[in-house]
Amino acid sequence: MQNIEAYQKSFISYLEHFSVDKEPKSLYEPINYILKLGGKRLRPVLTLMTAEIFGVTAEKAMSAALSVEVFHNFSLVHDDIMDDAPLRRGKETVHEKWNLNTGILSGDAMLIMAYQLFENYEPEIFQALAKLFSKTALEVCEGQQYDVDFETRDDVTIPEYLKMIEYKTAVLVGAAMKMGAIVANASKEDQDAIYNFGRYLGIAFQLQDDYLDAFGNPETFGKQVGGDILENKKTYLYLKTMELGSSEDMLSLKTSIDNSELSNDIKVETVKQLFTNSGAAKATQEAVKDYTNKSFEVLKTLNISEDKKQVLRLFGEQLMNRRV
Amino acid sequence: MQNIEAYQKSFISYLEHFSVDKEPKSLYEPINYILKLGGKRLRPVLTLMTAEIFGVTAEKAMSAALSVEVFHNFSLVHDDIMDDAPLRRGKETVHEKWNLNTGILSGDAMLIMAYQLFENYEPEIFQALAKLFSKTALEVCEGQQYDVDFETRDDVTIPEYLKMIEYKTAVLVGAAMKMGAIVANASKEDQDAIYNFGRYLGIAFQLQDDYLDAFGNPETFGKQVGGDILENKKTYLYLKTMELGSSEDMLSLKTSIDNSELSNDIKVETVKQLFTNSGAAKATQEAVKDYTNKSFEVLKTLNISEDKKQVLRLFGEQLMNRRV
Repeated sequence: MQNIEAYQKSFISYLEHFSVDKEPKSLYEPINYILKLGGKRLRPVLTLMTAEIFGVTAEKAMSAALSVEVFHNFSLVHDDIMDDAPLRRGKETVHEKWNLNTGILSGDAMLIMAYQLFENYEPEIFQALAKLFSKTALEVCEGQQYDVDFETRDDVTIPEYLKMIEYKTAVLVGAAMKMGAIVANASKEDQDAIYNFGRYLGIAFQLQDDYLDAFGNPETFGKQVGGDILENKKTYLYLKTMELGSSEDMLSLKTSIDNSELSNDIKVETVKQLFTNSGAAKATQEAVKDYTNKSFEVLKTLNISEDKKQVLRLFGEQLMNRRV
Repeated sequence: MQNIEAYQKSFISYLEHFSVDKEPKSLYEPINYILKLGGKRLRPVLTLMTAEIFGVTAEKAMSAALSVEVFHNFSLVHDDIMDDAPLRRGKETVHEKWNLNTGILSGDAMLIMAYQLFENYEPEIFQALAKLFSKTALEVCEGQQYDVDFETRDDVTIPEYLKMIEYKTAVLVGAAMKMGAIVANASKEDQDAIYNFGRYLGIAFQLQDDYLDAFGNPETFGKQVGGDILENKKTYLYLKTMELGSSEDMLSLKTSIDNSELSNDIKVETVKQLFTNSGAAKATQEAVKDYTNKSFEVLKTLNISEDKKQVLRLFGEQLMNRRV
């Protein structure tokens, strides 16, 4: 077993040698561009780590890990079109640097390439990976659709929101880990357990993201603090305030959010105050802890050594305590 | 063996029972909509027919046939966005009836669903189908990208054009047939031969489409005759005129096409005259015949009975002689 940074390093060096050198350039250049934009490479690292946990080399899981990363970047390219986002990791998005058609078509090609990367595995493993991939990819589409639908809805419930982030974010974390387990021929029970470990951790991760977006340290948090508030996003903090707050709080929240005359700073501060006073901020931190604990409970059922469980627990704790 | 109409009927009845009844409706309703818009269902019919030619029931190939049709419709949804097309088969396109985001996301979901339909087959067949599918789907994307690139290029050659229509249209016809052969466990040689039969026929089909768009009978041709001319499309007829025509013809062709003051009727008539006088019209009909003959040559190498070869030859002749 290596540490996270070592997996990250070997994945990045593998990715550097993976350049699509095919015609037409207008289709494949944007793919090379987005894949090299950087990022933490968290999902593929999880695939590699899980493969070693279940007893095969990270090397053997490399194609599956790359597939997960290619799929993740496919979803970024298409989501950025839907969100009309000009920037991704501080650089131009694909549809901005090229155009809408290129964004759609290069994204489509990436989704197909993600499947092709499984072709290096024998038929049984290939089928298991592709089935898991299809199920997950479809759930990610469903999650994205819920997210789009929620923008124009005023009655989104907490369970609906949790389902949305589970589909949009968490299932891919679970699937990334399960792919490592599939490549390693782990038992069905272990495959399901590691999937649920990743899935719960993915939900915790996203809830933590909601929290940090409002309460993170501006010096260390990568994005603009308060971004969700300024975009009027219905995050867990928002929905929980609507649930827990007094009718006065709720009215005040709606008013602040709809008030276009407030300066950004005042708006963020006012809404953060409401998040805190209503108890929503605390409830969000508790939810992060709850889902992290759920993932730790699942760990206990895994048929692997205590050492290895410790590696996974440490990883979960790092995610839960992160400030960025 | 049944006739084409019988395969068509059984596929359509299968499709009628295939309705995606899942949440979120906003993702799946557009999928049901586009799949039920109609069409000749040529590609899935070829999958069913080929399966029976190689000795299994059409029933066994039904999931593969549906996959081909779902993929074809995925490509229509995304292409219609790229072409900014308001209508498809006389009805609103998906992005027009809903919106851009729905068009992108429902399309993505269809591409994934096409892979899922292979899950009904055992691992070896599954892998063979999925590999062929990925290769083909990527080529279709490349063909679409070439088509987009050609719009702004003035130096497109005939070989480049042929490669574009091969990728955009013909490989899927070949793959549809090969899938039937894979499901029937035909020999590798027969799989490749039937693929090439379909591929050549697909090229002939598209060239015939170029020809009919200008010279088809307005009473029987489904689309507006002269549509390609009015859209200034670089079809085989156009490129061949540029190749064969006198410098006077070429100048006249460019002038007519760029002249926005000509009435549509005059423009279509002038350009058709140039297509005929330059010999391009005749050359196009010959190319259709050539590719059809190439497909018939491939037929001879197939290890199937003469009766079955006759069925395939008849099918090819019908395509070649069609007026719609």
